[in-house]
Parts: sequence; structure tokens; C-alpha cells
Amino acid sequence: MLTNPVIESMLNRKSIRKYTDRKPTDEVIDTVVRAGQQAPFAAQLCSVLLSRKKAPFGAPLWFTFCVDMHRMQLIMAKRGWTVVESDLSVLLVGIQDVALMAENMVIAAESLGMGSCFLGMTPYRAERIQNKYHLPKRVFPLVELVMGYPAEEFLPRPRYPLEFTLFEDQYPELTDEMVESAMRVMDEGYLAEGYYHRQKAKIKLEADREEHFTYRDYSWTEHISRKSGQWWSDPTELLDQMEKCGFVVRTKE
Amino acid sequence: MLTNPVIESMLNRKSIRKYTDRKPTDEVIDTVVRAGQQAPFAAQLCSVLLSRKKAPFGAPLWFTFCVDMHRMQLIMAKRGWTVVESDLSVLLVGIQDVALMAENMVIAAESLGMGSCFLGMTPYRAERIQNKYHLPKRVFPLVELVMGYPAEEFLPRPRYPLEFTLFEDQYPELTDEMVESAMRVMDEGYLAEGYYHRQKAKIKLEADREEHFTYRDYSWTEHISRKSGQWWSDPTELLDQMEKCGFVVRTKE
Repeated sequence: MLTNPVIESMLNRKSIRKYTDRKPTDEVIDTVVRAGQQAPFAAQLCSVLLSRKKAPFGAPLWFTFCVDMHRMQLIMAKRGWTVVESDLSVLLVGIQDVALMAENMVIAAESLGMGSCFLGMTPYRAERIQNKYHLPKRVFPLVELVMGYPAEEFLPRPRYPLEFTLFEDQYPELTDEMVESAMRVMDEGYLAEGYYHRQKAKIKLEADREEHFTYRDYSWTEHISRKSGQWWSDPTELLDQMEKCGFVVRTKE
Repeated sequence: MLTNPVIESMLNRKSIRKYTDRKPTDEVIDTVVRAGQQAPFAAQLCSVLLSRKKAPFGAPLWFTFCVDMHRMQLIMAKRGWTVVESDLSVLLVGIQDVALMAENMVIAAESLGMGSCFLGMTPYRAERIQNKYHLPKRVFPLVELVMGYPAEEFLPRPRYPLEFTLFEDQYPELTDEMVESAMRVMDEGYLAEGYYHRQKAKIKLEADREEHFTYRDYSWTEHISRKSGQWWSDPTELLDQMEKCGFVVRTKE
């Protein structure tokens, strides 16, 4: 593998959940956001909210990334246009614009000695965020990122083997062996660090499922299975939150 | 603004549409994809298809990024789980995983002297891509990226002013002045380079709209308005392509 400061920043990145009191300067913040802005957008649909007050994990910076059609519509109005594009199409592109920008900011932060951590479940808090930041309609809060100078040090998390992710010319049949080897890399990597144990992050079993795991063997594949296997089965709440922000993905047929 | 090699790579990036014949080595490709894999995923839902044959713009590398629930389901099955999570929820997270990974690859490539360019409209070609790469169900091709050594040089594209993108504590009222200033930065930036003229990229007006623009004043805000103002109004084709890949976002109520 080749290396350079850019590759190193990417390989070193991890989600930081403890921060020092040191506050990033305005210049640091502007640099990070400007680097984010230069991402290869389809349509500059990402806007960024910042709060420097009481962020999760005690981080000094709390960014909320939004899919923003409000700005676009103001521009279109000046040109005599209104949007006909479906909200599904807008979101498909807008979600990518958001993540492209956010990832530049994550890596830019890393290169400046900072760390960061994404917060999940933002869309379920969309209405609350709308109120907090006085968002106009057509702005949908998609994901949050806290950032600051790290007060913890550990190794980057494991990932699937490269051959379980990159497929040339044809998507291969994924054999039992390949699947089990990918699971082993992930589970052993997280167990070696005591990741779930330290965070007491075991997900409760619902219905009549019986618990057979302790923190000695509970790891990434079981954790991620419990999420997709138990949670978020009904999209109603997501669709409602989107509609409160002015995006309609529900179909009428 | 602060700078370092990482920030510089981000600020220098532009979409490259002309490539030299030089072929990136396997080591270069592996490095770029490994850097991509270390992105801050929610659930490692991104898999990457690679073709080194006849890519658009004559690029030597052609990546197709997919939201991949197939791998996840193989892992879940080994743990005795099946997915209950709605496909809307899966896609919301999976699209972000894809873009986070793709952006790391874009910047890693830049740092290794390569350039890249996203291809739009991939979801509309999902079924064709499914056939080409023999994709199993539950793998949705979201976006493509060509990559190689650049055979053109120009300045990075303009972006909205920072104060039109970053909002602290409150989403401000966007005044006429702010909107017009953002439009000016974008339009004058693209016009100065002759971007649309060089590519003959003016979008045709539909219905009875009369053309008033020449390549002397046709620029970014008019171009982007013509897309959202004329195209993609019916989500049916998108929803159909998703369903062919095994993702159902249509709601029945």
C-alpha cells in the first residue's frame, strides 16, 4: 500500500467520544467547512448548522448537515423557475451532497489534529432540530457530527477485507468462507479493543429471544444484526419527519 | 485559512473529463479503495464494482458504488437474524455510507496525482448495471466514478460563499442580496472558464419556454434551474429501478 499525509489521515480516523476543553478557532472552523464545500457536489444541496453550545460527548463543535432545497428554490425563483423534480429524486442527490461534504470535513478535521463523531438517528429528530435552528421548509436535517480535539487514543476500527468490498467485472458468489472470514475480522477487531464492553452498548433482545451473549463474545456482527433485525421496521415516522420538513416521499397509487 | 496537504487536496479537486493512457497499478487501486473503506460508516453498506474496460471520458478506472444489503443479510443469516428494517431506512443510511466511501476515494486519488469524475443518473441504469455485473438482489447501484491520470488542467470550480452555507445557531433569513451574491459567485466563476460553452452543455427548454440565453450568459444557476425545473418530476422510474434491485420504497396506504 502507498501512503502520504492524505491517505494517513483517512486510515487514522476513528470516531472520538471524548474531547479536551480546547476550542477550535474561527479560522480552524472556516478551513474545515471550506474544505467541505469543495466536495464534488451534484447541486450544492448541503447546508451546515453549527452550535458551539453543550454538544454530545462534551465536544466544542456540533454540526448538523441538511439537505437544503430552500436555497436552491430562492435561486430558481430569481431565474423564473419552480421545482418539478420529485422529492425522491432531490433526496437521492441531496443525501449524497451532504455525505460528500461531511466526509471532507471529517478528514480535514483529522488533518488539523481534531477528531469527530457522527450522531445517528438525526432524521427522527428533524422536527426538534427544525425548531431549534428555525429552519424554513425544504430543509431536512440528515446527520450530525460533533468535532473537537480528542481526549482519547485508540486504534482505528476494523473493516471488511478488501476482497469482500471491491469486485472487478462481476459481483462474485460470496461463499460461506468469505462471509465467515469477514465476520471474524470485524468481531475479533472490536473484541480486542473491548469496544462494546467499554460503552455498555449491548442491544436488548426483543420479543421472546433469549440472550446467549456476554461482552466476551458480543461484537460487531451481532450488534449490527440486532439493529436491522429489530428496529426501524415501520417507515412512518421517517416519512412524517420528512413531510414536516416539506419533503414528500410517500407515494399515492 | 489554514492549509496542509490534506486541505490542499480537497481545495484542488475538480471533475476531470480527459485522461492520459497511463494505467494506475493494482497497488494504487488498492490504496484508494482501502482509504475509502476506512470512512466513518454507519453499517459498511457500500460495495464497489470496478471495470477497467472502456470507461467514459477514456478513463482507465470505472467504479460503481452500490448500497449493498446482500452482504449484510448473509452475515445476519449466520447469526440467526432476518432484516425487519424498512428499505427507506436502509437506503437513508446506505446512501450516506456510499458517499462517505466515494469521497475518501476521490481525495485519496487526488493525493496520488489522479483525477476523477462522478457520473450522474446511475439509479436510472440500475437494471443494466445489475445485468452487467451479475448483481444479486438487495444491491442497488447508486453512483459511478471514473478515475485516472488527468490530461487537462484548470482551476477548481466556484462554490457558494461560506456565509451562504454555514449557519451558526439559527438558519438566517436569506436576503435578496445574499441570494444574488451567491448566484453571482457561481455564474461568474463558471463563465470565466467557459465551462458550459466548452462542453456545449446548454439544457434545452421544454414546452413553450423561449430561449433568451447564449453561452455568453448561460451559467450555473440557469443550468441547475433547468434540471430541477424540467426533469425527474415522476419518481416512477426511480422506484421501479429500486424494486428491480430488491428495494421497495413505495408506500401502500
